[in-house]
Amino acid sequence: MRVFIPGVDGYLGWSLAQHLAARGHEIAGADSFFRRKWVGEMESWSATPIVSMDERLKAFKEHYGRELVFWEGDLTEWDFVESVFKEFRPETVVHLGECPSAPFSMVDVHHAVMVQTNNIVSTFHLMFAMKDITPDAHLIKLGTMGEYGTPDMDIPEGFFDVEFRGRKGHMPFPRGAGSWYHWSKVHGSNNIMFACKLWGLRATDVMQGVVFGTRIDEMAGDERLLTRLDFDGSFGTAINRFCCQAVIGHPLTPFGKGLQKRGFLPLRDSMQCLTLALDHPAEAGEYRVFNQFEEVYGVTDLAHKVQAAAEKLGIESEIRALVNPRVELEDHYYNPDHQHLLDLGYRPSHDVDAELRIMLEDLTKYCDRIDAKRDVLIPDVKWKGDRERVAYLHDPVASA
Amino acid sequence: MRVFIPGVDGYLGWSLAQHLAARGHEIAGADSFFRRKWVGEMESWSATPIVSMDERLKAFKEHYGRELVFWEGDLTEWDFVESVFKEFRPETVVHLGECPSAPFSMVDVHHAVMVQTNNIVSTFHLMFAMKDITPDAHLIKLGTMGEYGTPDMDIPEGFFDVEFRGRKGHMPFPRGAGSWYHWSKVHGSNNIMFACKLWGLRATDVMQGVVFGTRIDEMAGDERLLTRLDFDGSFGTAINRFCCQAVIGHPLTPFGKGLQKRGFLPLRDSMQCLTLALDHPAEAGEYRVFNQFEEVYGVTDLAHKVQAAAEKLGIESEIRALVNPRVELEDHYYNPDHQHLLDLGYRPSHDVDAELRIMLEDLTKYCDRIDAKRDVLIPDVKWKGDRERVAYLHDPVASA
Repeated sequence: MRVFIPGVDGYLGWSLAQHLAARGHEIAGADSFFRRKWVGEMESWSATPIVSMDERLKAFKEHYGRELVFWEGDLTEWDFVESVFKEFRPETVVHLGECPSAPFSMVDVHHAVMVQTNNIVSTFHLMFAMKDITPDAHLIKLGTMGEYGTPDMDIPEGFFDVEFRGRKGHMPFPRGAGSWYHWSKVHGSNNIMFACKLWGLRATDVMQGVVFGTRIDEMAGDERLLTRLDFDGSFGTAINRFCCQAVIGHPLTPFGKGLQKRGFLPLRDSMQCLTLALDHPAEAGEYRVFNQFEEVYGVTDLAHKVQAAAEKLGIESEIRALVNPRVELEDHYYNPDHQHLLDLGYRPSHDVDAELRIMLEDLTKYCDRIDAKRDVLIPDVKWKGDRERVAYLHDPVASA
Repeated sequence: MRVFIPGVDGYLGWSLAQHLAARGHEIAGADSFFRRKWVGEMESWSATPIVSMDERLKAFKEHYGRELVFWEGDLTEWDFVESVFKEFRPETVVHLGECPSAPFSMVDVHHAVMVQTNNIVSTFHLMFAMKDITPDAHLIKLGTMGEYGTPDMDIPEGFFDVEFRGRKGHMPFPRGAGSWYHWSKVHGSNNIMFACKLWGLRATDVMQGVVFGTRIDEMAGDERLLTRLDFDGSFGTAINRFCCQAVIGHPLTPFGKGLQKRGFLPLRDSMQCLTLALDHPAEAGEYRVFNQFEEVYGVTDLAHKVQAAAEKLGIESEIRALVNPRVELEDHYYNPDHQHLLDLGYRPSHDVDAELRIMLEDLTKYCDRIDAKRDVLIPDVKWKGDRERVAYLHDPVASA
């Protein structure tokens, strides 16, 4: 199958290109390298020493026996997107080409505007290119479980049956996102839902949980095939950051009470799920939503898991909560459905400890890279608008 | 009170500036004159012969005894918005500065992108300027009843009590917009709701029905004070278009079955409602939604009302349905709440016939202007993407 991956230079994009190439798919990708620049703006870099796209493409061809067709370009430029579609005519588009950071969107007005317009316009251009050029193609769009926020009730997969004053309907579940970034994903979901109704597009909107992991099996043995792994306060995510903290002896830092619950999944499960969506496309006109995660964990529980896994490797680490830079509930009900992918055959890894061991071993190799940027392990973007590295929540002596 | 009206050159903006000035408020406005350009792009103009802003400002000062402080500029430019807020420090912002046309947003990819980015970015800039400079100000944001679409159940005012698997919540009512424009308003509503939660802004989000009318009382006697009135297929709305059609002997043209129901209100009621919102601001941190319309009518019923009102003035007109250029339900349940404004003291005019008579008399004066652009009375933007003037639904002989 011809699969187009906008955002192919990213954490998920570079992994997915390999995962699908290993399964015989024909892969094309596009990227503007904005992610590398944005992480640079936050004074950080990838913990893994990722190589240039030229080198990535060489390694890709050596390992998978065929080219990854690549275009450098910006999805917010219509002519670029249109030309890619005319040349490659994808059968599936896996849209990983958005700015994925909540804190980055909260920096100031310019970042808020950039993240929302970048994400909305890129998705518009892909949808219109599909309508005009490949109307039968399947759009797999990366959303986030964060679109739902933390309502005080179960979270269905996109839609729910509701009764209001005696009339019943099957309606979109109201979203309650918690950052300008998360709202950009809601806006995108709404636009895609409408495009399916309007033009008969096929779309799978993936409400993905927080992904963790340094690698998938395909990458073994060649450092050029490694995907990026961010650990700064803006582009790094919970478990990845805890592991980076552990390997340099930095405290593991949940926010606030640390009782926030989220859905998590290993990188290898994300690849498995996206592949299942790709292998079982939506019907023409169908807009379907998959909640994509393995299991719900509390954030501090995960810090304890990382601490325990590190200890087995002889690494001591402490857990120290930070003052929460976000506006969010720190202790809440959380029970999202995630049945659709299981129905398609998703087999969750269910071995977080094994995954953490691999991560810690991988990251130990690169601890000098992490240590060189250790300041960014403490977030400095506050939801209320000011910008400074947040403090620890408790005095370490007092809380001991 | 110091009231800032972005979009002051528009249909509602120019009317509101006068309505509030007559009540003693200090008015400032901004406009980029995009509306005049957009309507020109659709090969149309205002039925009323609106004068330049320079002349408008002169007339305003003569009639209301004080200046309307005016800046020409684009709300998507942050420096412009910031400088206006620093200079004027508004106590209320009535945001009428968005692109208001569903068909215009459906022209092609570029129009879809322009309408959504223009509307999202302008609202972002106003919200951030409020946060930074006038955090206690009240934002009155013009949304549309079209955000809800036509769900098969009652429509509450923004939020509803819902039960799902035994747990109860008070949640945003799921939106079901029907054009890229209408979705831009949903995106804006979502962003404002979040800003109120995040920063404690005060906001009233007005889900306004379809406005009709050529004037408010304040405009009487001076043509320079008249507001614009559009009749083209993109910027004109149902009753205004029917009246323009009637005065030049053009058929009145509902779409499809013509059983679509919408909430409508006269321009004078819109002014009354916006003033009530302004006089009773939202609390700090409160995001409230008002459904703002007088009454629900079927579109063909309205065409009959216009036909009857015209007949009393000696104008014969026929009603001829067009092939529907839109994707929408043509016969549906529709029962939206509209209690909040009544609770604040809104007194609906409840005299559509009197309003239609004024409109037809006004527009008769300008029938040459309408006739000069009569082609645009038939819409040419189709929701499916192609662009041509739509045909009549039935052969006139066969349907007689």
